[in-house]
Amino acid sequence: MSKSKPTTTRSKPAALRAAKKPAQTTASTKPSPTAVAVAASSGPYQVHIGDGLLATLSSRLAKLLKNPAARIFVVTSPEIWALWSRQFLASFEGKGQGNGNADPTILFHPSGEQKKRLASVESLADQLAQAGADRDSVLIAFGGGVIGDLTGFLAAIYMRGIRYVGVPTTFLAQVDSSLGGKTGVNLAGGKNMIGSFHHPLAVYTDTSLLQTLPSRELRAGLQESIKAGVIYDPRLFSYLERNAESVLAANPVALQHVVTASVRMKAAVVSKDEREGGLRMILNFGHTVGHAIEAATGYKALLHGEAVAWGMLAALRVALNRGLLSGSQFERIASLVLLYGPLPTFNVPAEKLLALTSGDKKNRSGVRSFVLPTSIGKAQIVKDVTDAELLGAVREMRSLAKPSN
Amino acid sequence: MSKSKPTTTRSKPAALRAAKKPAQTTASTKPSPTAVAVAASSGPYQVHIGDGLLATLSSRLAKLLKNPAARIFVVTSPEIWALWSRQFLASFEGKGQGNGNADPTILFHPSGEQKKRLASVESLADQLAQAGADRDSVLIAFGGGVIGDLTGFLAAIYMRGIRYVGVPTTFLAQVDSSLGGKTGVNLAGGKNMIGSFHHPLAVYTDTSLLQTLPSRELRAGLQESIKAGVIYDPRLFSYLERNAESVLAANPVALQHVVTASVRMKAAVVSKDEREGGLRMILNFGHTVGHAIEAATGYKALLHGEAVAWGMLAALRVALNRGLLSGSQFERIASLVLLYGPLPTFNVPAEKLLALTSGDKKNRSGVRSFVLPTSIGKAQIVKDVTDAELLGAVREMRSLAKPSN
Repeated sequence: MSKSKPTTTRSKPAALRAAKKPAQTTASTKPSPTAVAVAASSGPYQVHIGDGLLATLSSRLAKLLKNPAARIFVVTSPEIWALWSRQFLASFEGKGQGNGNADPTILFHPSGEQKKRLASVESLADQLAQAGADRDSVLIAFGGGVIGDLTGFLAAIYMRGIRYVGVPTTFLAQVDSSLGGKTGVNLAGGKNMIGSFHHPLAVYTDTSLLQTLPSRELRAGLQESIKAGVIYDPRLFSYLERNAESVLAANPVALQHVVTASVRMKAAVVSKDEREGGLRMILNFGHTVGHAIEAATGYKALLHGEAVAWGMLAALRVALNRGLLSGSQFERIASLVLLYGPLPTFNVPAEKLLALTSGDKKNRSGVRSFVLPTSIGKAQIVKDVTDAELLGAVREMRSLAKPSN
Repeated sequence: MSKSKPTTTRSKPAALRAAKKPAQTTASTKPSPTAVAVAASSGPYQVHIGDGLLATLSSRLAKLLKNPAARIFVVTSPEIWALWSRQFLASFEGKGQGNGNADPTILFHPSGEQKKRLASVESLADQLAQAGADRDSVLIAFGGGVIGDLTGFLAAIYMRGIRYVGVPTTFLAQVDSSLGGKTGVNLAGGKNMIGSFHHPLAVYTDTSLLQTLPSRELRAGLQESIKAGVIYDPRLFSYLERNAESVLAANPVALQHVVTASVRMKAAVVSKDEREGGLRMILNFGHTVGHAIEAATGYKALLHGEAVAWGMLAALRVALNRGLLSGSQFERIASLVLLYGPLPTFNVPAEKLLALTSGDKKNRSGVRSFVLPTSIGKAQIVKDVTDAELLGAVREMRSLAKPSN
């Protein structure tokens, strides 16, 4: 079995050095895999969720693709590959004599939002072209949200669209970015300002991959599950309240429960509203201010989930100030957001954040759309949040969380 | 009325210096506008073809968009803008008091395949973001094929897709690239290797714009009409044979006839096969070798239509050698291709062209697909053209045309 060597010369990042070693899950605690269907205009696809799915990846792909000649290209980060290449490649061993899609070619892309740019897409496309990738080739996005967004977009535009499969490795990618078909890269002036709707053929979500996830990333990712609870699923919200300890300890049963419930929420929403005509916009709860924070801090100081957590706090303040949300519900939601913290602080004037929300993709013809929770499990979209109102809420948001660094 | 100044600092290209002044069409020779419908998964759209359509652009857009608040961004080349800005902007004068979409913002992109790259898309996207373009904004591609491909792709991926309208200014763009929804940019390793299917809202094809087109570009573009005749429309083929003089003199009646017939052919094909499942592939007649020639010569020495003309000659040889095409039909087609020449020669070994055809996007899982004419008006797709066969045809192709420079 041949595989390319990493082409990156970047030094090993802190995330890798800090990563835990893969833990062994005992049989007794291993929950059965679940599957969630997602409807899409390009056809429905399945999200398979289970502890240890990687071991069956090759045979699952062979069944899915029905074309042993289709070449497979894996896009991954050096960090993920260092931790999981052996397990990833194990299922492909012994294939290639007509038994399945063997010898995947490995392409590397660094982690982090900074390199999620068109230049990286072009570099990967050049590598695909040089390696002879054609319209029947299939990409596997093996990594977190950045790898998924970038690989999905690369698949969307390489030869005007080839197929791809998601194997998300971070909590955030597993519950959010790997499904819904949103792919893209950043502009200097805004996150995901360039992209396509392009659905994966399937998503294979192996929760055992989360065992090597740094604790901070898990916590940040869980903010998206809190979001799912707030806008859609009060039972998930209660589960996250009651089982915070086992969830944060990456207990396999707890993770499978939270990941599956979060995926079900997202699948239900995007299946009903693929192109963000209306309903899907509620997924942006916390994201208007969150994106502004990420842009203002150069996508460096905070993880996406942390920025969204701040954004949820700001939106909660707007909802409370408007009387849309009761004080007790406000307290309960804000407490859960902070329980899954801590949230790193950042030094950006509220006015700057406000200005950055004006460029949000959700805005149409100059109107700022804003998602406000009205109770746990329900949210609505409003279009009349004033600059003064948002400015006040952004200032109040800061007082909700204690500095963590 | 405010408009941006050109941001380019490039020197005026030869094409502009050589361009003819716009000619006045007399009323007696002015044919009535025609309209051709194109079916697309995103909804049908109309191609309006007429002499002087630019004068009614603003009111046509207002009717089409039904949203006076939608902002309009024009992507054009400095050359086109120097020739046609006055006429383009005239129809927008006096709008902006709620009467329509006023004050379009003008963005510039240089002509030529060399700059049709992701870096240019990113630069234009940055300009859109800085100018506050949102999801309701509409792009107008005002230029030739490069402007159309690039602007359509920019519209496809800016904020994951905004609307655009085509106003093609070259013959090639009017009969071919402006419809069908294929958008994209080049990689170092291949033309249009990056792109999307993204259909325009409408196409406004003003044949009077062709009056300033350099003669060489018109001739090159007409090769696509010859292609349309060969693969689909024997009556168009005969018209091009019988009326070569008035067509090449850009007679308005002749141009309207040829443009409309060519658009009808393409509309019929892409309406039946939007994503190149089968039928649409016949449009690639001449393009397998044509693309290889363009890539080998760095997209500089030959115009697209000229490269396609060479490619058609090569495909004709393959068809003749196989006995798929009679000698007399071969002669008639080759003669028409050369009549609309001359074709610039180029110095590329046949082996190199052969190697470059292997990377063609039409190939799937390593099989080279090839379009061969079987008679005037009919073509078929074959997948078993051998390297030796193609190599021979490429060598024979050169002997068909006399050097022109």
